[in-house]
Amino acid sequence: MSTTSTTSTPGTSAGAVVGLDELPLRDELRGKSPYGAPQLDVPVRLNTNENPYPLPDALVARIAERVAEAARGLNRYPDRDAVELRTRLAHYLSDTAGHRVGREQVWAANGSNEVLQQLLQAFGGPGRTALGFDPSYSMHALLARGTGTGWISGPRNEDFTIDVEAARAAIAEHRPEVVFICSPNNPTGTAVSEETVLALYEAAQAARSGPDEHGALVVVDEAYGEFSHRPSLLPLIEGRPALVLSRTMSKAFGAAGLRLGYLAAAPAVVDAVQLVRLPYHLSAVTQATALAALEHTDTLLGYVEQLKTERDRLVSELRSLGCRVTESDANFVQFGHFGDAAGSHAVWEALLAHGVLVRDNGVPGWLRVSAGTPEENDAFLGAVRAVTKELKEKSD
Amino acid sequence: MSTTSTTSTPGTSAGAVVGLDELPLRDELRGKSPYGAPQLDVPVRLNTNENPYPLPDALVARIAERVAEAARGLNRYPDRDAVELRTRLAHYLSDTAGHRVGREQVWAANGSNEVLQQLLQAFGGPGRTALGFDPSYSMHALLARGTGTGWISGPRNEDFTIDVEAARAAIAEHRPEVVFICSPNNPTGTAVSEETVLALYEAAQAARSGPDEHGALVVVDEAYGEFSHRPSLLPLIEGRPALVLSRTMSKAFGAAGLRLGYLAAAPAVVDAVQLVRLPYHLSAVTQATALAALEHTDTLLGYVEQLKTERDRLVSELRSLGCRVTESDANFVQFGHFGDAAGSHAVWEALLAHGVLVRDNGVPGWLRVSAGTPEENDAFLGAVRAVTKELKEKSD
Repeated sequence: MSTTSTTSTPGTSAGAVVGLDELPLRDELRGKSPYGAPQLDVPVRLNTNENPYPLPDALVARIAERVAEAARGLNRYPDRDAVELRTRLAHYLSDTAGHRVGREQVWAANGSNEVLQQLLQAFGGPGRTALGFDPSYSMHALLARGTGTGWISGPRNEDFTIDVEAARAAIAEHRPEVVFICSPNNPTGTAVSEETVLALYEAAQAARSGPDEHGALVVVDEAYGEFSHRPSLLPLIEGRPALVLSRTMSKAFGAAGLRLGYLAAAPAVVDAVQLVRLPYHLSAVTQATALAALEHTDTLLGYVEQLKTERDRLVSELRSLGCRVTESDANFVQFGHFGDAAGSHAVWEALLAHGVLVRDNGVPGWLRVSAGTPEENDAFLGAVRAVTKELKEKSD
Repeated sequence: MSTTSTTSTPGTSAGAVVGLDELPLRDELRGKSPYGAPQLDVPVRLNTNENPYPLPDALVARIAERVAEAARGLNRYPDRDAVELRTRLAHYLSDTAGHRVGREQVWAANGSNEVLQQLLQAFGGPGRTALGFDPSYSMHALLARGTGTGWISGPRNEDFTIDVEAARAAIAEHRPEVVFICSPNNPTGTAVSEETVLALYEAAQAARSGPDEHGALVVVDEAYGEFSHRPSLLPLIEGRPALVLSRTMSKAFGAAGLRLGYLAAAPAVVDAVQLVRLPYHLSAVTQATALAALEHTDTLLGYVEQLKTERDRLVSELRSLGCRVTESDANFVQFGHFGDAAGSHAVWEALLAHGVLVRDNGVPGWLRVSAGTPEENDAFLGAVRAVTKELKEKSD
């Protein structure tokens, strides 16, 4: 794969577009560059939390079969409400996430990015704010910006857990309409406890108790939920109409190329996003492919178990190499500590020189590595060993 | 197909969602219902301008083949920049639309709705306005609303052409940041002349000539361009950095289920939408399916020729039945005149009773019928004949 972009940090002026002077581009976009990790041609790519296991042949064949079936009717618009897909996703959640949900509680879109964008269009937007706990998935803030929603960066502890008292205070002070909780958190890997989510939900509902005001929508982003040591937070939506759980097929289902995200919540939330979704947003081929993948859930969840084992191995081996490692419930590991931002960037570059691409997520002193195949992880650990040695020799 | 929605008119309170009282839904969405034509189980569906011809078997097989290939790498994110697809779309436009464009001038997204939404996110948004000429594709106004962009409804003549002088005056008065020109226009079928587009472009550039201000972006929505008697307006983008042409594979390529829209413009416009697009917005299966369809362009354009013949037949036969018909350059025909909104809705219902679903687009006194297969069109014309007779008997 050749280099298609060298842009790594959203919102910087590097790579800013030119030739826009004659066009009425919005002021806040001037000098910005597109979001996205660098896509570099290296042997070991562990930078975007992709699942390293290709789909099994039987599933590839089934996708071809279901897509061919869909293609025969491709001249017609797709099912606007994705009824069959939402039904199957509801079954999947009911079977695996500890709580029974129905199709009317599930919504799907082109990646969880689009799901979250629709939530912000319905519940955020101009004159409103969303609050998240940084460092976290940077798209939350970017989606807020893209929908005209103000962004409030809430606090985390030194160990990247959420400081509940500080978080409650931030919610009470800023009274946001939307609160994002990412669990397991990207890029740190940190799981959020049920108690913390309940405390923040309560604070989010209490913050706006005036006669005409509403509590905030609390969105739990569980994109990496299947990799956690803990059970899903899905059961918490019961009796909590403003709690939304978002998920994706990109990671656990090994289908980042499919772009299929979904949410589970009270039916009213599903009704609300239908007011802002683009009509026929989800193509017939996307629906057919996702349905095929859901037929192979057991096989794909088998790969998840292998990745959890590899993730735990990465944690222990990185520690034995002298790295600090943040507790991880995801398919990636945050490791360091390399001093400051310059220090971690230097290690990022040194690993790249050894043919291993990890993610420099902008958390000063830390890097993030995705759990790959055993061979990829061995290559990564070998590169860390070599780089650590080089750095030690340099400083001696 | 069963009834999945009974909602026909966007923005009315019919079918408004319930149970949202506890949620912080945006005020302007309260009491609204989702956009979308009714999907009813009737023998002849001519209400959504779908192409009636299923994809040929050879293309279905090729889609299965290319999607299987993409599925083997589905664990990886798709090409974020859709380079191969944009290259092929550029070739298609260069070959068929009278002007050579390069990949850097082309952008693709999930349906032209998403293309237009991205343009509004980049160039419209809060504090800005977009202007279109109603009646036109109602999603233009809805996309404006969804992106916080103000909407100005510009004037049309009695015959649904654009009144150039009135349009120039409206642009000068309102100074919008975005101007929509739909050609052929949906739902009227009306083509817009090159002279009119040039006059409006000039007006749109002149309206904001202050030292720090920019002319408006002018978006020509050519979703039905391939069905026109006239050549594409694509060549006009040459030397006009603020002119954008949008297209779709839904109609001419018979792929409404695919959701593939695209634009052609100056490279700076493509750079601009990349600042607001969701990362990896276009799935690998969508890219693979679209590429397969582009390999079969000649066959699909053959169907377009058949549909143009049928469209012309509908115009002449409706006239011979005593209907008024708006000149059509699209794959649909606007016919009437049935008095007022109640009159056209009564005819819509009467046609439905005869098993034919057409579109009641909210243009009082008029209805819109999509060109179907010869058999479907015969059934429609038979129903019109019968309904006309019934109405005449009633009034006698």
